[in-house]
Amino acid sequence: MRIALLGGTGDIGAGLALRWAYDTDHELVVGSRDPEKARAKAEEYETELDSRGVDRKITGFANEMAADRADVVVLAVPPYHVADVVADVADKLDEDALVVSPAVGIGSDEDGMHYNPPSAGSVTELVADAAPDHARVVGAFHNLAADRLANLDVDLDLDTLVVGDDADARNLAADLAEDIDGLRALDAGPAANAAEVESLTPLLINLARYNDGLHDVGVTFE
Amino acid sequence: MRIALLGGTGDIGAGLALRWAYDTDHELVVGSRDPEKARAKAEEYETELDSRGVDRKITGFANEMAADRADVVVLAVPPYHVADVVADVADKLDEDALVVSPAVGIGSDEDGMHYNPPSAGSVTELVADAAPDHARVVGAFHNLAADRLANLDVDLDLDTLVVGDDADARNLAADLAEDIDGLRALDAGPAANAAEVESLTPLLINLARYNDGLHDVGVTFE
Ligand SMILES: C[C@@H](OP(=O)(O)OC[C@@H](O)[C@@H](O)[C@@H](O)Cn1c2nc(=O)[nH]c(=O)c-2cc2ccc(O)cc21)C(=O)N[C@@H](CCC(=O)N[C@@H](CCC(=O)O)C(=O)O)C(=O)O
Ligand SMILES: C[C@@H](OP(=O)(O)OC[C@@H](O)[C@@H](O)[C@@H](O)Cn1c2nc(=O)[nH]c(=O)c-2cc2ccc(O)cc21)C(=O)N[C@@H](CCC(=O)N[C@@H](CCC(=O)O)C(=O)O)C(=O)O
Ligand SMILES: NC(=O)c1ccc[n+]([C@@H]2O[C@H](COP(=O)([O-])OP(=O)(O)OC[C@H]3O[C@@H](n4cnc5c(N)ncnc54)[C@H](OP(=O)(O)O)[C@@H]3O)[C@@H](O)[C@H]2O)c1
Ligand SMILES: NC(=O)c1ccc[n+]([C@@H]2O[C@H](COP(=O)([O-])OP(=O)(O)OC[C@H]3O[C@@H](n4cnc5c(N)ncnc54)[C@H](OP(=O)(O)O)[C@@H]3O)[C@@H](O)[C@H]2O)c1
Repeated sequence: MRIALLGGTGDIGAGLALRWAYDTDHELVVGSRDPEKARAKAEEYETELDSRGVDRKITGFANEMAADRADVVVLAVPPYHVADVVADVADKLDEDALVVSPAVGIGSDEDGMHYNPPSAGSVTELVADAAPDHARVVGAFHNLAADRLANLDVDLDLDTLVVGDDADARNLAADLAEDIDGLRALDAGPAANAAEVESLTPLLINLARYNDGLHDVGVTFE
Repeated sequence: MRIALLGGTGDIGAGLALRWAYDTDHELVVGSRDPEKARAKAEEYETELDSRGVDRKITGFANEMAADRADVVVLAVPPYHVADVVADVADKLDEDALVVSPAVGIGSDEDGMHYNPPSAGSVTELVADAAPDHARVVGAFHNLAADRLANLDVDLDLDTLVVGDDADARNLAADLAEDIDGLRALDAGPAANAAEVESLTPLLINLARYNDGLHDVGVTFE
C-alpha cells in the first residue's frame, strides 16, 4: 500500500513512518505544508533506517501531492487543523481512500490533561464530516506515544484501537496497525464510540505524570 | 480495616467482598437498603468462601448501620443514586473516613456505551460534593468487571485507577486495592481527572462487544 503521512514531519508522523518502514513493505510518503521540510524529514528517516541496515526509499512532498494517489492518508497534524488539512487534500483522495485520524483534542489545567472534543463529538467524527463521501474515515493510533514508536530499539507489545463507521475500513486500518511488530489492533466500533477511544489519551498522559516509572504510557486490554 | 460495602448486595459489591474476604484480613460489612437482604447476601458470600476452605465472618446491615464506624465506605450503587446514599449515611461517617466511588454514568445507543457524566463533571466529583467535608472521597475500581472479580478461580493481573483530591486518601485506596492479589493500583491524580478515568469503562464494554474473545475486559498500562 501507498501510505501518505500528512504532517509526517512531526512526532507521531515520525513514529509511524519509522515503524512502517522498518517492519513492512508499504510505500511511505511524508507530507508537509512545506515540501522542502517533507523531503528533509524523509531523508532523516531514511538515514535512521540505514543506520539499522534497512535500505528504504521514503519520499517527501507537499500534503496535496502526498495525498494524491495514496491508498491510505494519515492526518498526523494537530487536532485543531485536521479539518483544514482534509479540505486541502479532498479532491486528491481516491474513491475508497482510507483516511486515518490519530488526533485527540486535549486541554489541560494544573491537575492534568482533559479530553476536549470538538462539537462533532470527537475528532474522528469531525474528520468524517469534513472528508468527501467517497473516502472512508477511521480513528486509530491515538493511544501510542510518538517517542515510543520512533525508538526502534523498544518492543511495543501494546494495543491500539480502531473506530469508524465502515467496518471494512476498520479492518483495513487494523491490518495496517498489526503490520507493525508488537501492535495488536482492537475494534471499538462505529464513529459514535470515538469519544471513548480518544479520551483514553489524556488519561495515559495523566498516569505518566502521577506514577513514577511510567513514561510514554500505552495500554493493553484483556 | 473495617470496610462497608453499601449496596454490597449487587454485582460489584459481591466481587469486592469476595476478593477482600479471600485475600485479606479486613473486616467486611455488607450494606443494603434492606437489612434482611444484606444478611442473606453476606451469608451467601460466607458460603462461597467456605466452599474454598476459607472460614470468614461477613456481616450484613442497613446501609446506615454498615457505614457506622467503618474506616472505608464503598458506594457500590448505581451512579444515579450515589448522592442519595451518601446523604443517607453522612452523619455516620467518621472523621477521615475513606469514601470510595466505583460508579460510572453510562448511556448507550445502538452503537455502544457512552460516558454520561453528571453535571459535576464526574461521579467522583458528584460524591465529593455530596459527602461531608471531613470525609475523604476517591474514585476507584471503575474498570474492573464485577463477574471477573466475583469468580475467585480467575487470576486478575489487572490495573485499577485511583483518583481524588486527597493524595493520602488515594494512597490508602491504592493500598486496599493492592491487597487484592493480582491488582495493581495506579494514581490518576486529583478529582478533576476523574472524567478521563470513568470514561474508560464504556470503552471496555464496547471492546467486549466488538472483539471476539474479549469478555469482562480489563486493562493494564505500561
Ligand atoms: C518536555 C516533555 O516532553 P514533550 O516532548 O513535551 O512530550 C510530552 C508529551 O507531549 C509526549 O509525551 C506525548 O507523547 C504525549 N502524548 C500525546 N501528546 C499530544 O500532544 N497529543 C497526543 O495525541 C498524545 C498521545 C499520546 C499517547 C500516549 C502517550 O503515552 C502519550 C501521548 C518531557 O519532559 N519529555 C521527557 C523528557 C525528555 C526531554 O526532552 N528531556 C529534556 C529535559 C529534561 C526535563 O525537562 O526533565 C532533556 O533531556 O534535555 C519526559 O517526559 O521525561
Ligand atoms: C446479559 C449480559 O450480561 P449482564 O449481566 O447484563 O452484564 C453485562 C455488563 O453489565 C457486565 O458485563 C458489566 O460487568 C459491564 N461493566 C459495567 N457495567 C455497568 O453497568 N457499570 C459499570 O460500571 C461497569 C464496569 C465494567 C468494567 C469493566 C468491564 O469489563 C465491564 C463493566 C450477558 O450477556 N452476560 C454474559 C453471559 C452470561 C449469562 O448470563 N448468560 C446467560 C444467557 C446466555 C446469553 O444471553 O448469551 C446464561 O448463561 O444463561 C455475556 O456477556 O456473555
Ligand atoms: N505526540 C504523540 O505522542 C501523539 C500520539 C498519538 C496521537 N497524536 C496525535 O497526532 C497528531 C499530531 O501530533 P504530533 O505530536 O505529531 O504533533 P506535532 O509534531 O506538533 O505536529 C505534526 C505536524 O503538524 C503540522 N502542522 C502544524 N500546524 C499545522 C497547521 N496549522 N496546518 C497544517 N499542518 C500543521 C506540522 O507539519 P508541517 O509544518 O510539516 O506542515 C507538524 O510537523 C495530533 O493530532 C495528536 O493528537 C500524537
Ligand atoms: N457491574 C460491574 O461490572 C461494575 C464494575 C465497576 C463498577 N461498577 C459500578 O458499581 C456500581 C454498582 O454496580 P452494580 O453492577 O453492582 O449494580 P447493581 O448490582 O445493579 O446494584 C448494586 C446495588 O445498588 C443498590 N441500589 C439499587 N437501587 C438503589 C437505590 N435507588 N438507592 C440505593 N441503592 C440502590 C441495590 O442494593 P439494595 O437493593 O441491597 O439496597 C443493588 O444491589 C455502579 O455505579 C457501577 O457503575 C460496576
